[in-house]
Amino acid sequence: MEAVMNRTWQPCAALIVAGGSGRRMGLSTRKQFLSLCGRPILQRTLTAFDRHSAVAEIVLVLPKEEIAARGEEIRQMWGLTKPLRLVAGGAERQDSVRAGLAAITAGQEWVLVHDGVRPLVTSALIERVLESARITGAAIPAVPVRETIKSTVDGWVGETLRRERLVVVQTPQAFRIELLRTAYDRAFDTAEPATDDAALVERLGEPVAVVCGDERNIKITTLIDLKIARIWLQEEETHANRAGL
Amino acid sequence: MEAVMNRTWQPCAALIVAGGSGRRMGLSTRKQFLSLCGRPILQRTLTAFDRHSAVAEIVLVLPKEEIAARGEEIRQMWGLTKPLRLVAGGAERQDSVRAGLAAITAGQEWVLVHDGVRPLVTSALIERVLESARITGAAIPAVPVRETIKSTVDGWVGETLRRERLVVVQTPQAFRIELLRTAYDRAFDTAEPATDDAALVERLGEPVAVVCGDERNIKITTLIDLKIARIWLQEEETHANRAGL
Repeated sequence: MEAVMNRTWQPCAALIVAGGSGRRMGLSTRKQFLSLCGRPILQRTLTAFDRHSAVAEIVLVLPKEEIAARGEEIRQMWGLTKPLRLVAGGAERQDSVRAGLAAITAGQEWVLVHDGVRPLVTSALIERVLESARITGAAIPAVPVRETIKSTVDGWVGETLRRERLVVVQTPQAFRIELLRTAYDRAFDTAEPATDDAALVERLGEPVAVVCGDERNIKITTLIDLKIARIWLQEEETHANRAGL
Repeated sequence: MEAVMNRTWQPCAALIVAGGSGRRMGLSTRKQFLSLCGRPILQRTLTAFDRHSAVAEIVLVLPKEEIAARGEEIRQMWGLTKPLRLVAGGAERQDSVRAGLAAITAGQEWVLVHDGVRPLVTSALIERVLESARITGAAIPAVPVRETIKSTVDGWVGETLRRERLVVVQTPQAFRIELLRTAYDRAFDTAEPATDDAALVERLGEPVAVVCGDERNIKITTLIDLKIARIWLQEEETHANRAGL
């Protein structure tokens, strides 16, 4: 009953992490600002959260220079309707998330942390993760591992992992804000890096629920990824046209 | 010294596994026969091995009906130059590989096992795997895991795996034939399925070397994969044109 009640009235904050230098592609434009079918990747990402009814505010973590260079454009030209705060990122992803968490309005109870370069996130996926977190405290989306995964030791196979229990983790990851803040405070006491936010919560010994992710929800880190994202978008349009939408 | 000598004179067999029904795509044509930039996926795969100087013979495992329907076309029209044997596949991948192994000419010492739906395999990759296997007895190509991988238990996170030691396994996988035959004989004594051939060799307690794979060497199992393969092929052509090839 409590979970059902929560669902109806509690808004959440969206923390979009785009603080990395993102120049692995070797281009002068940071990848989050590259165009994907006519709109910047990051604009697509922000719009998905802006349109979701549960999202009350958006905190966007960007490299300091990009806030100066593009802050006004993002505020004025990207068609966002929810309160938006721009925060300067740190050296590592963890520093960026921590900075973003500090900028969320006091009193907000829930946060969705999402990679800025996952523009194909859908409203349905946001909903799934959020609903689960509101019951469990922490939830992440994931898809099954399709390939064979092995561990290696010095150029030799260590072991073949049992694929049926493995998943590939995505974002948005949803948390009770206080839980994630505690996890980050604790993380800064250890040197061990984490590749996602849930891992820090797991280190506290807290349970993290896994919901069904979306294979289209890819992270764009190379130019090939950008082309793949374009294919997915075109597929969606084809389906939408077929359905007469 | 021994390894270097082996390299210069020992040929190998290529065992191409395309025995699956491959109708997950929901099409009437099995995926291995779909066109990729003007040529069937499987033709591209076979050509890569046919052109490699170390490959002395090719054993192609196909569904029984496809041997009847397309065997002649493959033999006559696909431009292959090496001895080619067509073998009917079994219910599972393991049955298909076992049938293929039985069809390799006696006296052949080395085998490359490859998925028929990985048409972007390059000569350089075949060479890398084969060279390593000739020294070690068994070698597989793999690429780093880019995403966060977790294990799950009943809808909850079990643990976050340490990504830096994990790899995504590809084919071709190269083996001393007798080693792989022994591994398959043993495998049929246990119920445990394996997702790749090397896993069966690992169960014998034999070492398997890991060489650098190729991120373009994708397995085509969906129509989106087919489109991604097309992108990679177009990239290659662009590079070839730039290099004046």
